[in-house]
Amino acid sequence: MTISSKRVESFSDNVIGIIITIMVFQLRFPRLNAQFTQHDVWHNLIPLIPHFIAYVVSFVVIGVMWVNHHHMFHLIQKVDEKLLWLNLHMLFWMSLIPFPTAMLGDNPFLPQACMMYGVVMLMNALAFRIIRMHIIKHELMYKENEEQRNSAVDEVNNRVKVKNLIGIAAYIVSIPMSYVSVYIAYACFMVLPAMFFIPDGVKTRFDVAKPVAEK
Amino acid sequence: MTISSKRVESFSDNVIGIIITIMVFQLRFPRLNAQFTQHDVWHNLIPLIPHFIAYVVSFVVIGVMWVNHHHMFHLIQKVDEKLLWLNLHMLFWMSLIPFPTAMLGDNPFLPQACMMYGVVMLMNALAFRIIRMHIIKHELMYKENEEQRNSAVDEVNNRVKVKNLIGIAAYIVSIPMSYVSVYIAYACFMVLPAMFFIPDGVKTRFDVAKPVAEK
Amino acid sequence: MTISSKRVESFSDNVIGIIITIMVFQLRFPRLNAQFTQHDVWHNLIPLIPHFIAYVVSFVVIGVMWVNHHHMFHLIQKVDEKLLWLNLHMLFWMSLIPFPTAMLGDNPFLPQACMMYGVVMLMNALAFRIIRMHIIKHELMYKENEEQRNSAVDEVNNRVKVKNLIGIAAYIVSIPMSYVSVYIAYACFMVLPAMFFIPDGVKTRFDVAKPVAEK
Amino acid sequence: MTISSKRVESFSDNVIGIIITIMVFQLRFPRLNAQFTQHDVWHNLIPLIPHFIAYVVSFVVIGVMWVNHHHMFHLIQKVDEKLLWLNLHMLFWMSLIPFPTAMLGDNPFLPQACMMYGVVMLMNALAFRIIRMHIIKHELMYKENEEQRNSAVDEVNNRVKVKNLIGIAAYIVSIPMSYVSVYIAYACFMVLPAMFFIPDGVKTRFDVAKPVAEK
Repeated sequence: MTISSKRVESFSDNVIGIIITIMVFQLRFPRLNAQFTQHDVWHNLIPLIPHFIAYVVSFVVIGVMWVNHHHMFHLIQKVDEKLLWLNLHMLFWMSLIPFPTAMLGDNPFLPQACMMYGVVMLMNALAFRIIRMHIIKHELMYKENEEQRNSAVDEVNNRVKVKNLIGIAAYIVSIPMSYVSVYIAYACFMVLPAMFFIPDGVKTRFDVAKPVAEK
Repeated sequence: MTISSKRVESFSDNVIGIIITIMVFQLRFPRLNAQFTQHDVWHNLIPLIPHFIAYVVSFVVIGVMWVNHHHMFHLIQKVDEKLLWLNLHMLFWMSLIPFPTAMLGDNPFLPQACMMYGVVMLMNALAFRIIRMHIIKHELMYKENEEQRNSAVDEVNNRVKVKNLIGIAAYIVSIPMSYVSVYIAYACFMVLPAMFFIPDGVKTRFDVAKPVAEK
Repeated sequence: MTISSKRVESFSDNVIGIIITIMVFQLRFPRLNAQFTQHDVWHNLIPLIPHFIAYVVSFVVIGVMWVNHHHMFHLIQKVDEKLLWLNLHMLFWMSLIPFPTAMLGDNPFLPQACMMYGVVMLMNALAFRIIRMHIIKHELMYKENEEQRNSAVDEVNNRVKVKNLIGIAAYIVSIPMSYVSVYIAYACFMVLPAMFFIPDGVKTRFDVAKPVAEK
Repeated sequence: MTISSKRVESFSDNVIGIIITIMVFQLRFPRLNAQFTQHDVWHNLIPLIPHFIAYVVSFVVIGVMWVNHHHMFHLIQKVDEKLLWLNLHMLFWMSLIPFPTAMLGDNPFLPQACMMYGVVMLMNALAFRIIRMHIIKHELMYKENEEQRNSAVDEVNNRVKVKNLIGIAAYIVSIPMSYVSVYIAYACFMVLPAMFFIPDGVKTRFDVAKPVAEK
């Protein structure tokens, strides 16, 4: 791992850290005046529920992206000029996530808000796929101890690739579905976080962890 | 300490740094018009006092968390997939802290604001405990010079564990107490920061510092 | 590369990461009431278009700056006191970018907004040039394997220097042009991002990448 | 320099980077309606001037603090528990800087705003002094090549100590002076940035730079 790859990672971490944290500022509760009633309290708390749910989903998706970014760059040995730009491209779409998240939190039943969320998430999943294809095509990955690593890494890579493609498909479907029923669109949004968040067996998880930890 | 563990630490530092800093933007003083009176000034400054107190308490709690996170990850040698997720889980609850802090700053006598603060802080303390249990269970800690370190580290770990459990208890108590008296809830919120902030003797503090500094 | 140079880079990355991310919070869509019409939706979405365009342009310019900062500091071996200050000077002008970006997003046809954008961008390009001149004058660059590196590095340096000077000229022109026609000013703003963003041949890009990756 | 000291530095850099950047969001220009006049434009731009000046002054002061923090921690070999807390204490007062900066930008002639700025800055200068005293008292500094370094380092330390004490005195004077004349208070606020920003001779600056660069 070169110093350059470390700077790309640390810059990405800064940007991802800001995106994941700052969305919480959509959760705002006003100052109540002295004669407030219980009704006033709940009247102000209830509209925060969709914001909270939107925050949780976006936090999980960005968390999934960070973990995958971590794994991907951990295996990178060479950083070329184009990778810097492709990474910035991904960060651009990631930095847009707070916008549809807030829009959906404010208007949970607005088809355009759903569609916007689907579009931004689709672009994120595609940006990830483009980086992965560039790394594989230009052979930027780490090659030491190739035999030891290959089986575990290949397994992970294939599984992540399949999950990424399913995620892309789900987000594509969500876009027209926003106009049919927002609930179908919501279900589509859950596909990617569910796939990564729900473990696929403790054993394989630790196969993944080993090369990360023992290097 | 592997490169991976460093990236987890640096990402956590980004997120914690943003959370701890950005709460200060709740402190706002309006532009006064040209004919302002001394009364106008104080009328706008006084409501900032609960905000300031809430900011100080949350700053100290997040500071305590950062110092403990620092100590905990300093001892970690292996990072597995699950630890990444548990750390993100902790950062999720930590990222919510600005919300009840602002709500309480705006409405210092609202039981629901107190309760919300207690719930978020309880989840933070629990998230910390879950990470600690995972590290111990899966033996992810650093094992070099075990004999040298063990006595100091064990002492620290035990003390932190006890403080963490007392903090969890205090936050659990604070939740129903919010509806009895907000002052009792406030007292509960002070337990955890007080335990970590007030030194337990200069001598033991330097026992803690040694393994941190000489590695 | 000394530890000090790393801290300058990491601090710059923090600041650049915040600037590039936080501009997205200018994109805000209000909460619509229950009786909203399609007209209300589009009435609120359309004014976001100039904000989105301004965001994209500023993101690309800051991205270009980050990539160049990365290349420049990658070659630096010695950090002197003055370089710290010149870097802070550049970060100052960079931190102002969100202001004219938001002003232009809100008022896309206001000459003063255009002029302000041109002035801030000009100061950024000049601040970059000042750092580059300081590094060359005081010979702070890395000198190992000089013969191997020189040809590739010199080529890159010359090309970046020429692009930087063209960018400065374009921003100088944009300032009076804002009062003639905002469209001419917009065209000037596109010069610098276009020069860096559009690749100048895959072969030369990889010449650039090699010293970055193999060090 | 231990890994722990690096994490303290990088956490501090995150927090300082956020503080120094985010103040710019006080500079806001409203969306003008289609029938705006030149008067409207200037009516909205002129109140931004005190905000801009306050931003520049606070940026310079925080920049001075970052450079000094950089120098101070560069010389630190051992990090003890208390240093973590003293550093958080300094970051607390630093994180408050945006509040009086915005208050003063909105109300440049309000004595209470001036006083608040003076108090927060005084606490920052004192927090810095407390860290420096702790480091010297507990001998946490780097001791390798002591003879080579001592003369340069001692000279710098003494000069920084004197500047810090003069700054503390200036901020103490500014507090009562805010009620006599805000202009006298403004002059006091300029003392510390002026002392650090104006170079005290190129030769001594490079004596400072050498231990930073050649380590």
